[in-house]
Amino acid sequence: MRHLLGIEDLSREQIERILTTADAMLEISQREIKRVPTLRGRTVINVFLESSTRTRVSFEIAAKRLSADAINVSSAGSSLAKAETLTDMALNLAAMNADLLVVRDRTAGVPQMLSERVGVPVVNAGDGCHEHPTQALLDAFTALQSLGSLEGRVVAIVGDIAHSRVARSDIYAFTKLGAEVRVAGPASMIPLEVEALGVKSCRTIEEAFAGADVIVMLRIQRERIEGALFPSLREYSQTFGLDSATLRLAHPGAIVLHPGPINRGVEISPEVADAEPSRILDQVTNGVAVRMAVLYLLTGGGS
Amino acid sequence: MRHLLGIEDLSREQIERILTTADAMLEISQREIKRVPTLRGRTVINVFLESSTRTRVSFEIAAKRLSADAINVSSAGSSLAKAETLTDMALNLAAMNADLLVVRDRTAGVPQMLSERVGVPVVNAGDGCHEHPTQALLDAFTALQSLGSLEGRVVAIVGDIAHSRVARSDIYAFTKLGAEVRVAGPASMIPLEVEALGVKSCRTIEEAFAGADVIVMLRIQRERIEGALFPSLREYSQTFGLDSATLRLAHPGAIVLHPGPINRGVEISPEVADAEPSRILDQVTNGVAVRMAVLYLLTGGGS
Amino acid sequence: MRHLLGIEDLSREQIERILTTADAMLEISQREIKRVPTLRGRTVINVFLESSTRTRVSFEIAAKRLSADAINVSSAGSSLAKAETLTDMALNLAAMNADLLVVRDRTAGVPQMLSERVGVPVVNAGDGCHEHPTQALLDAFTALQSLGSLEGRVVAIVGDIAHSRVARSDIYAFTKLGAEVRVAGPASMIPLEVEALGVKSCRTIEEAFAGADVIVMLRIQRERIEGALFPSLREYSQTFGLDSATLRLAHPGAIVLHPGPINRGVEISPEVADAEPSRILDQVTNGVAVRMAVLYLLTGGGS
Repeated sequence: MRHLLGIEDLSREQIERILTTADAMLEISQREIKRVPTLRGRTVINVFLESSTRTRVSFEIAAKRLSADAINVSSAGSSLAKAETLTDMALNLAAMNADLLVVRDRTAGVPQMLSERVGVPVVNAGDGCHEHPTQALLDAFTALQSLGSLEGRVVAIVGDIAHSRVARSDIYAFTKLGAEVRVAGPASMIPLEVEALGVKSCRTIEEAFAGADVIVMLRIQRERIEGALFPSLREYSQTFGLDSATLRLAHPGAIVLHPGPINRGVEISPEVADAEPSRILDQVTNGVAVRMAVLYLLTGGGS
Repeated sequence: MRHLLGIEDLSREQIERILTTADAMLEISQREIKRVPTLRGRTVINVFLESSTRTRVSFEIAAKRLSADAINVSSAGSSLAKAETLTDMALNLAAMNADLLVVRDRTAGVPQMLSERVGVPVVNAGDGCHEHPTQALLDAFTALQSLGSLEGRVVAIVGDIAHSRVARSDIYAFTKLGAEVRVAGPASMIPLEVEALGVKSCRTIEEAFAGADVIVMLRIQRERIEGALFPSLREYSQTFGLDSATLRLAHPGAIVLHPGPINRGVEISPEVADAEPSRILDQVTNGVAVRMAVLYLLTGGGS
Repeated sequence: MRHLLGIEDLSREQIERILTTADAMLEISQREIKRVPTLRGRTVINVFLESSTRTRVSFEIAAKRLSADAINVSSAGSSLAKAETLTDMALNLAAMNADLLVVRDRTAGVPQMLSERVGVPVVNAGDGCHEHPTQALLDAFTALQSLGSLEGRVVAIVGDIAHSRVARSDIYAFTKLGAEVRVAGPASMIPLEVEALGVKSCRTIEEAFAGADVIVMLRIQRERIEGALFPSLREYSQTFGLDSATLRLAHPGAIVLHPGPINRGVEISPEVADAEPSRILDQVTNGVAVRMAVLYLLTGGGS
């Protein structure tokens, strides 16, 4: 594994290896001194060309807890304003002897393209509607914490499946780990070919949640709603939102995941977001561990 | 002391403990190698949702000189653009095992609100017109450097008292440390209830400065002047500005403080800002030491 | 040498001392653990008041590889929005016991002005149309890697000489190191007095390239072209662009430099930019080493 561009490319063994490594990393963040010398003197550059707080901070913390030097590049105030090509910028960062580039971009395929041109490992931190592999890895990690195994478990993903890189990466990750994956959402938000990915497309939340062990609620883009993919936020919430009533449709003990930031009262009600079945903050904690594992493995750790 | 939200909440003993600790920290910044391992492996996140250079840099340097990992979050390019609630963002940062959040916001009460929801220490780095406690601590620290004690000393604070978080925090700090505090400014800029804070409200700069040992000149917001709280910058400057003539009204040897950035020629004349009685750059130096002390004490140092 | 404000001020010996030091620094970035403790506990502040990615990242990496604490200040979100003077901001940063300020600004002379007011070393990272000394140092370093010596060698600089701080700094650096320097570009882009700098002004690229050992292609500002200094990008490219045909006018084995970011197909064709004679990515690698050398020497290293 030279890059982490998407879950689609990974074998079950590769996914499991990352998750096992993340398990060891998790403990580091619980220490008083949350820092190990593993990547001392390595240079990790976070290239975030789409706005982000939590993912950038998560990668930055992951790098620093491994003692790497973390450098941030954002689109604001960057030379991209000067019409530089992305590839040229990445080649430049690599030429400064960077050890790894973390790349987020609005356009699907940008991390892949850079990985083919630049001689250093590239981690996709979210590219357009394509993939967000570290999100899926932390989702799987969080589900495994509660369930022990995903073999034969039912995972329901609800929301704008068609435009969600999280949904795509989650579908790959959960199916590769042996789960049965169902998706649900307004018809305009379900890709026609989705069942080719090995998932079941459900018309209603009732159908999707029946016996589900893991519920993944996607963030709804308010712009998309107003942009006519769905008549109104209120109707979306009533039809596809999660609250304590709809939660009862799932398996008792089912857990709730959300990639954040959450729209309280839209796709998820506050009383579910803040209560027992929600693993939303565990996901955030685990995200640092998963990213530490990815940085470690891609810079030659464990080989 | 679990958080630092304002000086109003602090006892004299707590203030003195921070200042004594800052005294020890001051020496670290004077070494060639300005770094001690005290907070190695701790994660300090600076959440600056209102633009700032000096305060953010001061906190960042303070964290780094204690060997903490410092992470910056600003409103530009953050997920707050996605309408995330502040509390959710702070809960996320805490879930990444942050050890302390430093928070600046345009709205009074935001650090307090976050401190009640988030399980990590919160430091208020300025919230609306409410408080700016580390500024008051560095002001007191700087005054004590010159005067030894504030008991019975006279402190005059001049400017837009009503809208100044520095003024509020300074009033609490200097009165708690035993000083007599006077405020002066245009009538539209003096809160009606100000004397309830234990200070004397003065009509003129002459009255405020008579026998004063410490003069605190507040930054005047040009927008507020043009916005009709006062007729013109020139008139403000002539009535409430500090120059070498008005300085002579104070006690010989009086010192001059200013939270910066200064408006040269408006609230303070260049010949005073750059001369002997000014302790403006000492304040900046001391600010790093005071913030090191706060970070140290709130992350469990000395307990 | 207390500051690095421009190449104009440097003697040949000083230039050679920086380049010799950079040679030693280059090896550090090739190690697996790219970090030496040389500047541990030193505070380097990058004040970039003009947008930049590569130069800021290069200085930040240079500081971190020497174990210095690197702090970034940009114009976005800074207190300069509050009309603070640049000098006051720099005085503040120095008062926080910074060890060195790296300054980029749109206005020529700003680093010089700050160096006269602020008691810490200042490095010019590009000021208006004046100088960009670390760029010239890395250009000279890269040329020396290929040529061994610049004595008697021919260097051709092509583009908007009049508005290029890189051209000015390169002219000083290459002539001081013994090279014959020629400049070429549209008449509107060649300063009238350029020959007073000891260079030869050429009308055509043929004249400039004849027997040249080093070709420096400047980035063309598209705004300047559209702004009537030259009729069209296409005509510029045909008259003063570098491609494999025009490259053959130079000395066999001539190397090609460019300060980046490159406009592919405008001042340089992709087949030259990405091929053997191009040293563009070596320049970037060497830039980190040259900046490490400058930080080291100006903070008292080697004295």
